[in-house]
Amino acid sequence: MAVVTIISDWNRNDYYLAALKGRILSLCPDTTIVDITHQVSSFNSAQAAFILRNCYRHFPEGTIHLICVNTESSPEKPHVVIHASGQYFIGCNNGFFGLLLDEDPEEVMVLKKDPHHPGSFAELYGFADCACNIIRKKKWNELGTAPMTVLKQIPILPTIDETTINGSVVYIDSFRNAITNISRELFDQIRKGRPFDIFIQSNYYKINRLNKNYHDSSTGELLALFNSLGLLEIAINSGNAADLLNLSINSVVRIKFYD
Amino acid sequence: MAVVTIISDWNRNDYYLAALKGRILSLCPDTTIVDITHQVSSFNSAQAAFILRNCYRHFPEGTIHLICVNTESSPEKPHVVIHASGQYFIGCNNGFFGLLLDEDPEEVMVLKKDPHHPGSFAELYGFADCACNIIRKKKWNELGTAPMTVLKQIPILPTIDETTINGSVVYIDSFRNAITNISRELFDQIRKGRPFDIFIQSNYYKINRLNKNYHDSSTGELLALFNSLGLLEIAINSGNAADLLNLSINSVVRIKFYD
Amino acid sequence: MAVVTIISDWNRNDYYLAALKGRILSLCPDTTIVDITHQVSSFNSAQAAFILRNCYRHFPEGTIHLICVNTESSPEKPHVVIHASGQYFIGCNNGFFGLLLDEDPEEVMVLKKDPHHPGSFAELYGFADCACNIIRKKKWNELGTAPMTVLKQIPILPTIDETTINGSVVYIDSFRNAITNISRELFDQIRKGRPFDIFIQSNYYKINRLNKNYHDSSTGELLALFNSLGLLEIAINSGNAADLLNLSINSVVRIKFYD
Repeated sequence: MAVVTIISDWNRNDYYLAALKGRILSLCPDTTIVDITHQVSSFNSAQAAFILRNCYRHFPEGTIHLICVNTESSPEKPHVVIHASGQYFIGCNNGFFGLLLDEDPEEVMVLKKDPHHPGSFAELYGFADCACNIIRKKKWNELGTAPMTVLKQIPILPTIDETTINGSVVYIDSFRNAITNISRELFDQIRKGRPFDIFIQSNYYKINRLNKNYHDSSTGELLALFNSLGLLEIAINSGNAADLLNLSINSVVRIKFYD
Repeated sequence: MAVVTIISDWNRNDYYLAALKGRILSLCPDTTIVDITHQVSSFNSAQAAFILRNCYRHFPEGTIHLICVNTESSPEKPHVVIHASGQYFIGCNNGFFGLLLDEDPEEVMVLKKDPHHPGSFAELYGFADCACNIIRKKKWNELGTAPMTVLKQIPILPTIDETTINGSVVYIDSFRNAITNISRELFDQIRKGRPFDIFIQSNYYKINRLNKNYHDSSTGELLALFNSLGLLEIAINSGNAADLLNLSINSVVRIKFYD
Repeated sequence: MAVVTIISDWNRNDYYLAALKGRILSLCPDTTIVDITHQVSSFNSAQAAFILRNCYRHFPEGTIHLICVNTESSPEKPHVVIHASGQYFIGCNNGFFGLLLDEDPEEVMVLKKDPHHPGSFAELYGFADCACNIIRKKKWNELGTAPMTVLKQIPILPTIDETTINGSVVYIDSFRNAITNISRELFDQIRKGRPFDIFIQSNYYKINRLNKNYHDSSTGELLALFNSLGLLEIAINSGNAADLLNLSINSVVRIKFYD
């Protein structure tokens, strides 16, 4: 049974999502459709990429992911289908895939413009038709008109020197924990076993140890841990770190190591 | 595989929706259940009709749509099952179907009152049982007790004369674009090739051209286009038209044509 | 076809839910996954229990329910799988099941700690693996490491004497109706046919009759009825009882009976 996922910024209160699901089920009745989320903030490709990159590997091989965020296309930024890591991705080649994928995809194909429904939204015909062509085992070369390379937005990476990592918040999760772009690998590589302080919002808040989990600290206490993504996360046990510390996307998190 | 859709004003934070899905899967295990949306504002039949009328045609023939908004019934406004456009609709005959369907349905049948669960909500037994009877190919005459005609609420239509269309906003979408009740057909019929101004909120804002898509205008610019429904839509490129122009349902949008 | 439900406080804007669904579909491709709700307030086990206890019976026999609220485990409060009322429940044995189930479950088994993915969230491996082991008909004894009894949080019950019931609000539903912990059985048992007043928020508001349904009262009128759960509910016809009467969880609802 084929699996198609949908991620969008449609916020579930429109008819787009239902129309798209209806059309997929009309074309390919046995498809299992999974919502990734429809609460991406409007036009926020970085957030969509963060969510999808942290879950797509768990889906069955051959799953088709429809990325319905920022899908207005142009000749330079056309709709494409991508084959990578054993899965398929359909979206707009506008830099999003540089944020989503760690490696260049094996195959990228430009979708042909749908000539029959000029006034409709792109996903309803172009994306659904391409997904169903994949499900029906159409050959790769027939899925679109021409190969293309992937355009890349570059994610913001921490800056480092021998005693410092300057990172930033890249995501606020449902529990209002702040996830940074500082990976455990980078941390270990610079730390070399030394003691450290993690400074949040200039030097007002600091943390000098790492938790294994949230409950290692008392209720209400500020803490830092490497989460299931291997990224440094700032949290408050049973609290709301982002709001209490006034953290948002791009807030600076700085680590200083001491000899 | 049968498809059942559900639209409601339950906002997803209650047990109703899960109970209904559980019961459908208990009665008819192979059913694919699709959420249209559960974020209809409370008791807002017009919004539910707008959303469902713009997506139901994309579902497979024979799809069964459960309309779980304003379902309190009375002898004059009973629960009914309707067969129209190759699909089935189960809901309350309270005027909703006049907003949903362009033409009178082929068949309307009054559901019998469920005698066994007087305290339960109507959808859980009456609607689910009827849906599963359709899936199990029960004869039309056995789905209910008697035929009936559809009661109609009349949608608000624009007023027109030779040089003017007075329309109104009928929907605000997820991107805060304002969708009006002015169709492309009506516009072309009155315009007859003439230049025009579209006035929004009395005469404070005006637009004198139509976009093909949102990106024809500069970022932040006010624009008008006919959307995928063929309805005039007021938007701001990468902005938030409804809030910036203080538009809401029933706000007036007036078009004046010049010789 | 197996059915797996998920209830969580993830609020749908994270990658957890999609990752979990993807993994379940990878392990057991033919599973039907149903969202109970993901809008449980953070860490609110009582709300999750209220929602799930009012819908799980409607699901097919053998349905597997994943409870993804407050899942941080400890040796005293481990993750468990429970067999009760013909269904399976996987969650943390932290008192939740005392709120969910009316009777002690037939079987409770401690899940083994997943050794391979220490940094991941518990549901993704422990819960999904256990669910798929059930679907694949693994023997009960092989689902975990040891049997256990269920730990219980006790729900708040009304206090009573011969002329009074002192209950409280236990849930505010989507329509802002206030559902109390006063059951029809308790009410009938104390009432013994006598007249009564229902007092809300000390003695400011009172109701001296029971409605059969919402529309028995005029629009805007305060009313009380026993809802589909058999619990006393305070509502306003076409209005918003919780906000207008300033009711929230734990607000007192007192009934006085007169000889």
